[in-house]
Amino acid sequence: MNAPDPKLLAALRAIVGLAGVIDTPADMAPFLRDYRGLYQGKTPFILRPGNVDEVSKILALCNAAGVGVVPHGGNTGYCGGATPDDSGAQIVLSLSRMNKVRAIEPLNYSITVEAGCVLASVQQAASDAERLFPLSLGAEGSCQIGGNLSTNAGGTAVLRFGMARDLVLGLEVVMADGAILSTLGSLRKDNTGYDLKSLFVGAEGTLGIITAATLKLFPKVAASATAYIAIDSIDVAVQLLGELRSASADRLTACEIMKRSALELVVQHIPGCVDPFETSHPWYLLIELQSAQANEPLDALLEQVLADALDRGVIRDAVVATNGAQRAALWKLRECIPEAMALEGEQIKHDISVPIAAMPVFDGEAGKWILQQMPAARLITFGHIGDGNLHYNVSQPAGGDGAGFLARSAEIEHGVHDIAHRHGGSFSAEHGIGQYKRGELQRYSDPVELEMMRSIKRALDPNNIMNPGKLITA
Amino acid sequence: MNAPDPKLLAALRAIVGLAGVIDTPADMAPFLRDYRGLYQGKTPFILRPGNVDEVSKILALCNAAGVGVVPHGGNTGYCGGATPDDSGAQIVLSLSRMNKVRAIEPLNYSITVEAGCVLASVQQAASDAERLFPLSLGAEGSCQIGGNLSTNAGGTAVLRFGMARDLVLGLEVVMADGAILSTLGSLRKDNTGYDLKSLFVGAEGTLGIITAATLKLFPKVAASATAYIAIDSIDVAVQLLGELRSASADRLTACEIMKRSALELVVQHIPGCVDPFETSHPWYLLIELQSAQANEPLDALLEQVLADALDRGVIRDAVVATNGAQRAALWKLRECIPEAMALEGEQIKHDISVPIAAMPVFDGEAGKWILQQMPAARLITFGHIGDGNLHYNVSQPAGGDGAGFLARSAEIEHGVHDIAHRHGGSFSAEHGIGQYKRGELQRYSDPVELEMMRSIKRALDPNNIMNPGKLITA
Repeated sequence: MNAPDPKLLAALRAIVGLAGVIDTPADMAPFLRDYRGLYQGKTPFILRPGNVDEVSKILALCNAAGVGVVPHGGNTGYCGGATPDDSGAQIVLSLSRMNKVRAIEPLNYSITVEAGCVLASVQQAASDAERLFPLSLGAEGSCQIGGNLSTNAGGTAVLRFGMARDLVLGLEVVMADGAILSTLGSLRKDNTGYDLKSLFVGAEGTLGIITAATLKLFPKVAASATAYIAIDSIDVAVQLLGELRSASADRLTACEIMKRSALELVVQHIPGCVDPFETSHPWYLLIELQSAQANEPLDALLEQVLADALDRGVIRDAVVATNGAQRAALWKLRECIPEAMALEGEQIKHDISVPIAAMPVFDGEAGKWILQQMPAARLITFGHIGDGNLHYNVSQPAGGDGAGFLARSAEIEHGVHDIAHRHGGSFSAEHGIGQYKRGELQRYSDPVELEMMRSIKRALDPNNIMNPGKLITA
Repeated sequence: MNAPDPKLLAALRAIVGLAGVIDTPADMAPFLRDYRGLYQGKTPFILRPGNVDEVSKILALCNAAGVGVVPHGGNTGYCGGATPDDSGAQIVLSLSRMNKVRAIEPLNYSITVEAGCVLASVQQAASDAERLFPLSLGAEGSCQIGGNLSTNAGGTAVLRFGMARDLVLGLEVVMADGAILSTLGSLRKDNTGYDLKSLFVGAEGTLGIITAATLKLFPKVAASATAYIAIDSIDVAVQLLGELRSASADRLTACEIMKRSALELVVQHIPGCVDPFETSHPWYLLIELQSAQANEPLDALLEQVLADALDRGVIRDAVVATNGAQRAALWKLRECIPEAMALEGEQIKHDISVPIAAMPVFDGEAGKWILQQMPAARLITFGHIGDGNLHYNVSQPAGGDGAGFLARSAEIEHGVHDIAHRHGGSFSAEHGIGQYKRGELQRYSDPVELEMMRSIKRALDPNNIMNPGKLITA
């Protein structure tokens, strides 16, 4: 594709004005490289529209000219979904200036925000109104809600509150031709035709650009109980999870698993992180119960369930946080795993899911297979076991050849994805497709499903200008 | 449209065999008239396929011949969505023989059922495995899960568990050309492309036929507390609802409102129904808290909240059920409203929703407007106030002219829908579109939204054979 016509570029600049264009190489650089450093793209400039009408005008012009548009949020995705290709012909459209909270309605338990709002600021606005916006993930201080919705983000509270898609009441979306679709508003129930909004959530900007959303809120959390539990195996985790959901009356809001190897890396590399137990154990669970009732005795409930599990020999040991500092320290053991892994050299990341009951057999087969291929590799398994989602990551052999290890990424990923697929699982539980997993989507999806996605893409973006080269090509 | 070619009819009979055809007028009659008696259709015969392959073969033949297919479940819908037109050219396809529970996975909190399973039997299968399937509505003893999904059914537990769409993990769907799309399976997280399943839920069979579904389960209810509360106004209900969600830590599973007029009709007409209070009050709420923890003191919690509300003068009176029989008696006051209304003569039904905070002003304006049009009409308002959804129904004047009253249905409905629309509301909160509300869909929907729906319909059903004449026409 050739560089866009200079007249088009001038018209696009005129739409957003001086304040809405970034065009120096240094200022553009952060928009042109993805978070993991896998992709490097080019663009004439970054457009930063200030409102939905400007987005509409930009798309109308680009659609008429057949020029691709790449929507860009906080740039924290793992699959290169917000990075343009290297042709220099695609326009990057950043939503960062559209960052207003348009309305918050505590009685209706809803909030309407623009796409460029940082996730943490949405959480804060809800909290200020004595409400909870439950979406929570590592990048929440910089990711933007538009990106969270476009990638259907998951995170640590999916078990209780669902993925980003489950939190949407309505959307404002600009279509490829510039038409503005608005289903914003705080209706809890509206059964009038096809569920269009769900189609845009997780579409990674390939069907339209989400510019605002009305989101569900919940009662604010007033009581928490957090425990770190030592267990023998992933089988025990699955069993305990099933019991805990019932025993806690579904107040289980997080259930994170990590292998001994993950805890060791964190303790080794991250200042202030300490193994909560005196002896070593094969696996650990971090669980949290939460309630909106301040006086609810969640600690007592959790201690009783764990004491019972200890008595029955189901678990090996457990600690329950007795204050906020201890709670934060336990969460740090989980949250710092990616950072600690990065300090150990190269890694091959996976984001698989399998039905919860199939997790033990998946783990056994995948671990065995990887070590057959790379006997010195280190399995740093962790993830959201409550959702059947493991970040089944592999670190390079200690002190070994990082580049040689990384060169085998595709082969190892295919192998792990094959095993997940054989057990009814997914190769992308929460990270999406972007550029990185397009091949896997073709490899594992049902042909009927792929053809349906292509039909929808053709119907809604006939000129293929919406984030071309991501997710699927019509 | 002409009657289908006899060769096609013979081929369709051959697919399902003798056991799969209903063709005597008496046996066909119940399939050809909708639940409310608004529509009467014709068909050469009713096909009752026994498995998904037969459904696939039927659709492939009908698609090639351009013959419309009308999927049919328990025939309990309010909008004529399962009734064929009167041309005699459309084939009715009943899913009733496909009624197996294919799998139940308690550890994964999921169940896979065929479309013809009656809702109550899905609830029972979950309960037998110590789990809860929360979808619950008046027709649950005869409606089928395929119809519940195709119409995105609501009911009394939406407040806590969402609509039918929110309960779906995966679907098996037969497309217009006979292709089978299967996303069945118990994955909790799978972020690989467009959300196709949500598109079929609520599409009323116009995009494909749902033949099976994997559904979410929850911990089984072990404790309930139920109260019937007398209040001054709908404003109080909105306020109390907001407080109750927080105070009960979101264990509020139902919040139903009814006007004095609705209670009076029930007490008058339904044997065993008694006004719980000695004096009359303007409005009533039926609320229920539920928990999966058997020993949870929900009664005490509810009594405390209500005592506090009484002290503050927020509510006028309240009774809390102390046993199962009392609980059932309170629910009967709510559930028998439609039956009691039917005994009072003709009625004009509405199924509107507005943002919860807008309910008082909607109620004020709509009530005033209706009584201006029909001074002797009776407003029998009730509904799911927790979801902003009122069945804003109107009974004919006592002893008046039923036919004359009914003749004004369209005018009254438009007026009420106009008022809901002006307050950001919907003309169909949970009943869908079918045949009955096609005009309203055109009247109230955003043109961009309508065009997107038409594009999707054209893309997935190019020959317009899927339930033609329902919801939308490409």
